[in-house]
Amino acid sequence: VTARPLDLRLIVITDAAMAVPRTIEDVVTAAVMAGAPAIQLRDKLANAAELVEQARRLHAITRAAGALLFINDRVDVALAAGADGVHLGPDDLPVLAADRIAKGSLLLGYSTDDPALARQAEQDGAAYIGCGAVFGTRTKDVAGEQIGTARVREVADAVSIPVIGIGGITAGNAAGVKAAGAAGVAVVSAIMKAPDPARATTDLLLALLRPSTLQ
Amino acid sequence: VTARPLDLRLIVITDAAMAVPRTIEDVVTAAVMAGAPAIQLRDKLANAAELVEQARRLHAITRAAGALLFINDRVDVALAAGADGVHLGPDDLPVLAADRIAKGSLLLGYSTDDPALARQAEQDGAAYIGCGAVFGTRTKDVAGEQIGTARVREVADAVSIPVIGIGGITAGNAAGVKAAGAAGVAVVSAIMKAPDPARATTDLLLALLRPSTLQ
Repeated sequence: VTARPLDLRLIVITDAAMAVPRTIEDVVTAAVMAGAPAIQLRDKLANAAELVEQARRLHAITRAAGALLFINDRVDVALAAGADGVHLGPDDLPVLAADRIAKGSLLLGYSTDDPALARQAEQDGAAYIGCGAVFGTRTKDVAGEQIGTARVREVADAVSIPVIGIGGITAGNAAGVKAAGAAGVAVVSAIMKAPDPARATTDLLLALLRPSTLQ
Repeated sequence: VTARPLDLRLIVITDAAMAVPRTIEDVVTAAVMAGAPAIQLRDKLANAAELVEQARRLHAITRAAGALLFINDRVDVALAAGADGVHLGPDDLPVLAADRIAKGSLLLGYSTDDPALARQAEQDGAAYIGCGAVFGTRTKDVAGEQIGTARVREVADAVSIPVIGIGGITAGNAAGVKAAGAAGVAVVSAIMKAPDPARATTDLLLALLRPSTLQ
């Protein structure tokens, strides 16, 4: 039996305010039904009790569709909800500590645009690196500086785990991020704000199949 | 071999702003050296990475003194720092979920002034109940309403685990809280703001030995 390879072509990050008037559940359902392989629950305003409830609802949706559910920041919430993974950054629990707590039961993502820190995260047990902001972003709390695709390539060259580009990514520029060595892209507004999230998901997945002039 | 009974006569809750110009480490060291059996790290402003570092520093201090270290809110931080327990409230992970994640490795405290919720928390695995605010409090984020010692007695009568009074407790009124059935008291300002935290700790511990007119 061989493990199924980690499919992170597209990570859809939630944003309750952008999804209005739809619920997060509405948008996530549309995205996973259209083929999004991974969802990340992010809600900086919710308390832990609310996050656990929301995560359990989303996990029922993602599991039924064969998609992965990651939780932003909180290892305890991810474990309580039975999620597939947790996404960490420099302000969160260290990757090594998270891996020990989870005892291998969670896929760990780590945000960095620094090749050396990416390599360290890989050694500490990270399953993938989130790297950005690649382009300008409309989501204020995605890491500030715009790094461009050349930096994505540096980070991808430094590690053997998947590197996922994030920040200002659309169906129009996704192929260039992949051509720079990213295994996939993470988006917030491109799907959360889309009038038709299923269509937006399909457009992004198709764009990632397209050969890029950078290749 | 019998387990040592849980000593929660006095839980000292940290507050970095109140401790100024001293550090939390200064005040906690003074308190545990003076006999405080338990410390709770609470810092609503710190991120998880900072909390883990702070918790590890405090754990070295409490462990050396034979005192217990609890972490407010974050089960993952408590596990990462090797703390003795975590204190939860209605906005945090459910007690049952926390107990499953910790697999029995953490003592779980739960805040409530409702006898039925206290009983439920005990069934779910809580090791103690924090009950308040007993009196008026100078710490804004301790549960609002003032419940008085009669309610402490109701909660203590409802459970077999220790009930710890919190909110506005001083050496002057601690004996009355104990007389109402509390196994101990939790304080913030009475020690964090004290000019001499060791002396303030001794005063509280002695006050808890004093017979009360309520007994």
